[in-house]
Amino acid sequence: MTDATPGEDTAAASEERLFAAERLVFFSDAVVAIAITLLALELPLPEGPSGTELLHSLGDHKSEYISFLISFAVIGGHWRAHHRLFEHVTRVTSGLIRLTFVWLLMQVIMPFATKVIGEDGAFEFRFVFYAVVQVVAMTVFVLMVWQIQRHHLYRADTPPELFGRTYRGAGVMIAAFAVSIPVAFFTTWAYACWIVIPLVSGLLLRFRKD
Amino acid sequence: MTDATPGEDTAAASEERLFAAERLVFFSDAVVAIAITLLALELPLPEGPSGTELLHSLGDHKSEYISFLISFAVIGGHWRAHHRLFEHVTRVTSGLIRLTFVWLLMQVIMPFATKVIGEDGAFEFRFVFYAVVQVVAMTVFVLMVWQIQRHHLYRADTPPELFGRTYRGAGVMIAAFAVSIPVAFFTTWAYACWIVIPLVSGLLLRFRKD
Amino acid sequence: MTDATPGEDTAAASEERLFAAERLVFFSDAVVAIAITLLALELPLPEGPSGTELLHSLGDHKSEYISFLISFAVIGGHWRAHHRLFEHVTRVTSGLIRLTFVWLLMQVIMPFATKVIGEDGAFEFRFVFYAVVQVVAMTVFVLMVWQIQRHHLYRADTPPELFGRTYRGAGVMIAAFAVSIPVAFFTTWAYACWIVIPLVSGLLLRFRKD
Amino acid sequence: MTDATPGEDTAAASEERLFAAERLVFFSDAVVAIAITLLALELPLPEGPSGTELLHSLGDHKSEYISFLISFAVIGGHWRAHHRLFEHVTRVTSGLIRLTFVWLLMQVIMPFATKVIGEDGAFEFRFVFYAVVQVVAMTVFVLMVWQIQRHHLYRADTPPELFGRTYRGAGVMIAAFAVSIPVAFFTTWAYACWIVIPLVSGLLLRFRKD
Repeated sequence: MTDATPGEDTAAASEERLFAAERLVFFSDAVVAIAITLLALELPLPEGPSGTELLHSLGDHKSEYISFLISFAVIGGHWRAHHRLFEHVTRVTSGLIRLTFVWLLMQVIMPFATKVIGEDGAFEFRFVFYAVVQVVAMTVFVLMVWQIQRHHLYRADTPPELFGRTYRGAGVMIAAFAVSIPVAFFTTWAYACWIVIPLVSGLLLRFRKD
Repeated sequence: MTDATPGEDTAAASEERLFAAERLVFFSDAVVAIAITLLALELPLPEGPSGTELLHSLGDHKSEYISFLISFAVIGGHWRAHHRLFEHVTRVTSGLIRLTFVWLLMQVIMPFATKVIGEDGAFEFRFVFYAVVQVVAMTVFVLMVWQIQRHHLYRADTPPELFGRTYRGAGVMIAAFAVSIPVAFFTTWAYACWIVIPLVSGLLLRFRKD
Repeated sequence: MTDATPGEDTAAASEERLFAAERLVFFSDAVVAIAITLLALELPLPEGPSGTELLHSLGDHKSEYISFLISFAVIGGHWRAHHRLFEHVTRVTSGLIRLTFVWLLMQVIMPFATKVIGEDGAFEFRFVFYAVVQVVAMTVFVLMVWQIQRHHLYRADTPPELFGRTYRGAGVMIAAFAVSIPVAFFTTWAYACWIVIPLVSGLLLRFRKD
Repeated sequence: MTDATPGEDTAAASEERLFAAERLVFFSDAVVAIAITLLALELPLPEGPSGTELLHSLGDHKSEYISFLISFAVIGGHWRAHHRLFEHVTRVTSGLIRLTFVWLLMQVIMPFATKVIGEDGAFEFRFVFYAVVQVVAMTVFVLMVWQIQRHHLYRADTPPELFGRTYRGAGVMIAAFAVSIPVAFFTTWAYACWIVIPLVSGLLLRFRKD
């Protein structure tokens, strides 16, 4: 709140104040941990007096269970990318903190997006919302990497290939989610893009190396 | 609980016992992280079998979505002000711990205040409640800064302008929320005060500097 | 789970294995932070199209709002007592970990106990449940202090009066909650015991000192 | 997400990149802390205008209260096993992070599994689901121990018996939960396996030692 005064912002732009990365990383971890745990909070309970009916009820809620598992993997993936990057980051700027909050907003929205995609009707619009949240999260993540690189916020012993690898990895995933959006207007199998595109791109990369 | 005995309080007043700041900061971060994540917990799900109806349903819940985004920015702002201050704090007194708990109470109330302001009817009263929570949170924050300054709880290398800048920033935001209260009785655009007042005050400050 | 084998327990009893206190303290903080934030999760929303009806609706839910505030103060008190003690603790035994989990169980139950006491009907039984949770939490806390003292788990520079002061403080609060139980069968003012008894005991202590 | 490219995976397989264990342990603690606290979130409130009816209502919800307490002990047990192991772990591999996420998925599912087992009807199927979650969690835990041992991720001063003891402890608990599954088709006393089997196995172990 108190940093909303433009006078300060201008001062900060010319010479960025630096903060220890630790507390921001900790705060991010806490938010992501809560978001990933809340995913399971409103899973529909299977109901029925007998085993057959219980299994039937499980089947009725199949899409909710599957979208829960997908979202768990997706948030887990976001966290692991963040973890791999911030392993090498010791200081943060105000700009990086602001980007982190946009990234966190996407994580916080995830349990909601998961419920949206798990409901029935108008599949393509639900799917687009979910995919856009991922594209935004990963685009912001790319901006975070760029800030870290530009302001030299990384440790001296950071492997030089870290940035190239991170941009490539995020780029492939952004492409996967972006391509899935038009596909969703034709088939509910649009999910498959999220797995097939990274897989094929990895294979291509390996061939080129050989 | 156990510190409710007045005998102890008197002893503490004459010669403040000091605690490492780390655990209090950590606890505060955890509480704020949970509060900010819970904001999204009860976002209304858009419903409808077709895209048109889904968009229509999104429109119906517009005020809930907007108040969620505002509250995310507001809690984020509180956290960043706290982060910028406690970067320089290494030890805390019992008094500062007590103030922190009042500040945390305001953060914990935020998801509730967000639901209150997102509902229909009696706009001015809902708005006042929300704005008062912010004014209390920032006034308590000013008291925290004052405690830190008075008891010399800050690091030796703290920039001397930190306190002046923090008081000024918090003062502007308190004014913005306080002024918005009477405005809310005339127009639902009272929200604009929260952005316009800090902006104008920042511009004025810059002119005076030049 | 894996420590349920009695063979290990026997071995542990003769020569306690020690663990760094840090991770247990961190885990406890996270649990308490979540419990204190969840208190506000299901606060009833005031409803009504006009200001008068909104205030009326607030009045109808008065007992829920008051019990939320009391519970916030109560959990805050538990945390502060824990904080003041563990400031001096560096290592923990298996026994202390087990006691901590019973203490945490009481904190985890708090949002539930708060809802129980905030509902209407059969006041004395609701009150007894709430008070018993506090008595158990503080009795377990006393056992934790005793374990720390007995196994010398505290830092070398711990002030010698720490243990006496902690026992006395916890003892007064246990008495306050215990005495309030029979009182609740006569009057809903039984809450007052929680404030009056510590206050009077503090005054008596001060007189004796003079 | 970004690590989904197979090219990277192959590189990682030949020469595992190592990460500091601290942040993963912290993240795990946060997730487990939230899961254990959420257990109590939807405990049914006892209702009734008089003490008798309140007690009656408590009795009606008995199975929910008992399954809450069991789950609290079960998650607590998982955490303590994790704590005892990671006390000696300083670095983690990508593989260990992935296993940890599967383990965390089981913890995140626990509040859901607790609600499933607390409902009425088709007891054996509800019980099987709950027991399978435990068996998976502990099997993944065994794989984690094996990774730590194989990649020498432990501290130099780790007691040599740690791995044997952890495998034995986890093995006994896996057996207890696995055996309880067929038993559940005959009697609701299948719960007893979870306590009796570890107890008997502990006694047998002690006899053999003597």
